[in-house]
Amino acid sequence: MMSMPEKKQPKPAQAEEGQTTAEQVEAMAKRRGFFWPAAQIYNPIAGFWNYGPLGTAMKAKFVELWRKTWVKEEGAHELDTADMLPEIVWVASGHSQGFNDKQTICTGKDKHRWRADHLIEESGKVKEKLEGKTTDELAALIKEHNIRCPKDGSKLGDVFVFNLMFSIPVGALGENKAYLKPETTQSSVIDFPFVYRSQRGKLPLKIAQIGKSFRNEISPRQVLIRMREFWMAELQVFFNPKSTDWPDYNSVKDFQLRILPVDGRSKGEALTVPVSDALKKGWIPNQLIAFYLAKVQRFYESLGFPREHLRFKELTPEERAHYSKAHWDFEVKTDFGWVEAVNNAWRGDYDLSRHQQYSKQKLDVFEDNEHILPNLYEPSFGIDRTLFMLMLTTWHNDGKRTWLSLPPILAPYHVAVFPLVKKDGLDVKAEELAKTLRKRFDVIFDPSDSIGRRYARVDEVGVPFAVTFDYDSLKDGAVTVRNRDTTEQVRVKIAQLESWLAERLK
Amino acid sequence: MMSMPEKKQPKPAQAEEGQTTAEQVEAMAKRRGFFWPAAQIYNPIAGFWNYGPLGTAMKAKFVELWRKTWVKEEGAHELDTADMLPEIVWVASGHSQGFNDKQTICTGKDKHRWRADHLIEESGKVKEKLEGKTTDELAALIKEHNIRCPKDGSKLGDVFVFNLMFSIPVGALGENKAYLKPETTQSSVIDFPFVYRSQRGKLPLKIAQIGKSFRNEISPRQVLIRMREFWMAELQVFFNPKSTDWPDYNSVKDFQLRILPVDGRSKGEALTVPVSDALKKGWIPNQLIAFYLAKVQRFYESLGFPREHLRFKELTPEERAHYSKAHWDFEVKTDFGWVEAVNNAWRGDYDLSRHQQYSKQKLDVFEDNEHILPNLYEPSFGIDRTLFMLMLTTWHNDGKRTWLSLPPILAPYHVAVFPLVKKDGLDVKAEELAKTLRKRFDVIFDPSDSIGRRYARVDEVGVPFAVTFDYDSLKDGAVTVRNRDTTEQVRVKIAQLESWLAERLK
Repeated sequence: MMSMPEKKQPKPAQAEEGQTTAEQVEAMAKRRGFFWPAAQIYNPIAGFWNYGPLGTAMKAKFVELWRKTWVKEEGAHELDTADMLPEIVWVASGHSQGFNDKQTICTGKDKHRWRADHLIEESGKVKEKLEGKTTDELAALIKEHNIRCPKDGSKLGDVFVFNLMFSIPVGALGENKAYLKPETTQSSVIDFPFVYRSQRGKLPLKIAQIGKSFRNEISPRQVLIRMREFWMAELQVFFNPKSTDWPDYNSVKDFQLRILPVDGRSKGEALTVPVSDALKKGWIPNQLIAFYLAKVQRFYESLGFPREHLRFKELTPEERAHYSKAHWDFEVKTDFGWVEAVNNAWRGDYDLSRHQQYSKQKLDVFEDNEHILPNLYEPSFGIDRTLFMLMLTTWHNDGKRTWLSLPPILAPYHVAVFPLVKKDGLDVKAEELAKTLRKRFDVIFDPSDSIGRRYARVDEVGVPFAVTFDYDSLKDGAVTVRNRDTTEQVRVKIAQLESWLAERLK
Repeated sequence: MMSMPEKKQPKPAQAEEGQTTAEQVEAMAKRRGFFWPAAQIYNPIAGFWNYGPLGTAMKAKFVELWRKTWVKEEGAHELDTADMLPEIVWVASGHSQGFNDKQTICTGKDKHRWRADHLIEESGKVKEKLEGKTTDELAALIKEHNIRCPKDGSKLGDVFVFNLMFSIPVGALGENKAYLKPETTQSSVIDFPFVYRSQRGKLPLKIAQIGKSFRNEISPRQVLIRMREFWMAELQVFFNPKSTDWPDYNSVKDFQLRILPVDGRSKGEALTVPVSDALKKGWIPNQLIAFYLAKVQRFYESLGFPREHLRFKELTPEERAHYSKAHWDFEVKTDFGWVEAVNNAWRGDYDLSRHQQYSKQKLDVFEDNEHILPNLYEPSFGIDRTLFMLMLTTWHNDGKRTWLSLPPILAPYHVAVFPLVKKDGLDVKAEELAKTLRKRFDVIFDPSDSIGRRYARVDEVGVPFAVTFDYDSLKDGAVTVRNRDTTEQVRVKIAQLESWLAERLK
C-alpha cells in the first residue's frame, strides 16, 4: 500500500544518488501533481494512472496543440466516439482472433505468467525468428531447449492464446457482448461513409479522434509507457490508392528525416536523410506517406525532443500485420531504450473491406465515375507516453538545481509571480499583477518562503518565467523576470510585461 | 439494422407532419453529423452514441466553456482520471451495494424485464410510497395486487437486485476486480488529500473533472438523455462545514431562482424568487449552496435556455441518499417532460469518512489548529443530455424554414462563406475570404447550389452568420451578411468584417 504524502510543503527534487532520471521524474510527478497511480489510498491495480492538476493542464494543452496541428491544419473531421463497441466490430477487424499474446504459466507455486516469445528470446538459446510461430511450435521450443521460469526455475506449462481486449457483457442478461476499444481506428472506419456523406466529403478524406484505449496488459510497466488505460490521438487518411502524390509534399522534401529502413536494421543506426532521398531510394513508397512521416518528426522536434533522439523504424513484413502495406514505428530514445511514440501504418483497404464483408453494407465511394474502396494511412499517437517521455527529455539537473524545460506551449503554468517579501504591500501589489496577467496567461502566485526556494519550486515543474515584485518595483514600475532555463534575470517595465511575455511564450 | 445514408447532398429538414421536435432533431443530427448510434453499420447496442464532426465541435466548445466557468473562474484543480477503479473503491462508496435497480422478469416466453417499483407505480393499484421497500416487500405488493407483465400479461417472477455498474476482470487471471466508474466523484474524493498537499491547498478546496461514466441501463432511451456511456462535468467543493458563508454570495443574492421546494411539490409549479428570499425561507440551507445553485441556473440561461424552462426540484429525505444533507435536481423542460441536467448534492462528509474507514488512511486536513474532515458539495453536469436538450430548445420551424439558434459560443461553425455563383472569380475571392476568416473563426465554405438552399443548410446546423460574396463585392469591397435567427441581411465592408463578426459572436 502506498503511504500518504507527508504533511509538508513540496520541495524541489534533489538529485538522488543511484536514481535514474525516470525515477526522479516519477517521484517529482507524484509529489507535485503531474500524475499518480489511480486509487492510491488503496492497493492500486498496476497500469492505471490519474493526472493531477499539473498533468491535466499539460495534457489539455497537448490536446489543443494536437488538434491545431492534426485536425484544423489538416482540415480533418474530428469524431468523439463510444468506448464500447459490439463484438462483431472486433471480429470484422480481426482483433477477436488476432489481438493476442501467446502466454505460458510456470508450474511453481506462484504461477508466474510470461509471454512465451519473450521468454524464448531472452533465454538466448534459440536463434530462429519467432514471429508467426503457433502455440504448439513455441511450446515445442520451450521443451526442446529446456527453458524454465526465470523467477523460480520451475517447468513451464502449455502455451496458450490470451486476448488483450476487455470484454463486457452489456444489457440485463449480458445479452450484448461488447469490448472496450483497444484503439480508436475502428470507429473512424465504420463511421467513414457517414462522415463522407454528411460532410459532403471528397477523397482524400481525413478523420481524427482523441480518445481512450483499453488493453489488459499482463505486465504494465515503465510508468506512463505501458498502461492498461491510455489516451491516443489518431489521424485517419482515407485516400484513393491511385492518388498518392501529395500537394503538401514540397513543404517537406528537404526536411532531414531520421530513418532506419529494414535494410539498415542490422547496423542499428538511423540515418538522417532529406525526405526526397528516402523517397528516391524507395524507403518510403509515396509522397503521401513521406509528408506524414516528416510532419510527425517535425511535431516532436517542435515539442523539444532532440532530432538525434528520434527515429522511424521500418517494420519487416514478418513484423507487420498481414494486411499492412508499410509500417514505421516512430521511436523516442529514453532511459528505457527506444520507445514507440507514434505508429505509422498504411493499412491498405483491409479495414473497410472487412467491415463491408461483415456488415453487408457498401462502404465504397463513387468519384470520377469510379467506385473506390479507399486505402487508409494512419499516424496514431500515444499521448501519455509522449508527455512522460517529454518530461524525461526536458528534466535537467546540473548538481545545483533541477528544472524541467518544457516548451512554453505545454507548460502547466506560463509564469510565476512572487512578492519579494510578504509585507510592506509588496504581496498586495504582486497579487494584483498576477490577477492582471491571468487574463492572458496561466499564472501561479506564490508569496511564501525564501525567493530561492520559490524559484526551485517553479523550475522543477517547468514554469518558463518567474516575475518578482520587489521594493524597487514600487519606485521604478518594473519587475525582475527570471528565465527558467538560463536563470538569467532581466528588469522589465510592468507596462510592457504582458507583451514581453507573450513574445517569449509562443 | 440501420440502412446506409442515401448518396445525396444533405437537405434541410422539412417540418414533418406528426413528428415531434425530438424526432426532427434526431433525424437532422444523424443526417448532418451531430451524432449517430455507435457501430450503426451493424446492429447497434442501445445507449451508445458517437458524435459526428459537428457534434464533436459543439461538445469541445461546451467543454471549453465549462472549463472557463467552472474550473478557471472557480480556481478549481482539474483532474483527468482512470475510468476503471478497483472494487474496494465501490464497496467503500456504497455503489457495490446500493447502485441498483430492483427488477423482475416476466414468466412469458420473451422474458420481459422491468423495474419493479416503476411497474407497481404505473399499475395505479398501489398508493403507498415505494422508496426504501425491500425486494420481498415489492414482490409481496406485486402478488397482492396481481400486477402482471404490461407486454404479454404473464405473471412476474421474483424481485431481485441488479447492479448497474459494469464489472471488469483485470489482469491475466482476472485477479483484480474493477468497475467502470458510474460517476467521476469518487476519484476526486480519494485523490483529495493528494491534491490538497501537492497544490498547497486550503479549504474550501475545489476539484473538477470532465470525463466519461458508464452504467448498464436496462432501457436506454430518449436519444442522448439515457445512455450507457456518457460524459459528465463535475465540480467538487470540499469545505469546512462550519464555514458556509460564501464570499461570492453577494453577486447572486438578487438573482431570480427557479425553485420547487419540497413543501411546494404538491402544487407542482416552481417559484421564481430572489436567492436571498429562498435562503431566508430556509429552502436553501446556506450561502455556499445558494451561490452554486444560482451559478448553475445562470450558466444554463447563458446557453439560451429560457428561465421558465428551468427549475431546481428539491428531493425529499426519502428520495435522497441516506447520507445526503440536501439535494436538488436541476431540471430542463423538454418534449420528454422535465429532465434532470445537473445533480446538486450536499454529501456531508460521507464519502471521505467511508474511504477513510476502508483505506485506513487519514483523509482529514489540519487547519487553524483543528482536524477537519471536509464536507462535499457537488454540482454534476450531464454533458450529452445538456447538448441534446439545447438542440431541442433552439430548434425552430416557422413553416417556411427550420433553424437552430445555438449560442454562437457553441455553434460548430461561426460563419459560412458563399460565392453568389461559382464563376467569374467570385468563388476564388470568396474562398480567399474564408481563408482569412478561418484564422479567427470556424468557417464553412460552400460554393455550390442555389443561395436559398445554402442558407437553409447552414440555418439547420446553427451557423449564426452567412456571408455572400457577390458581383457588387468586386466593386464596393463589401459583402452581404445574413443573420440566422432574423434572416435580416446587411452590407458590411470586407475590411471591417472581422471585427463586425467578432463583436456579434461573443
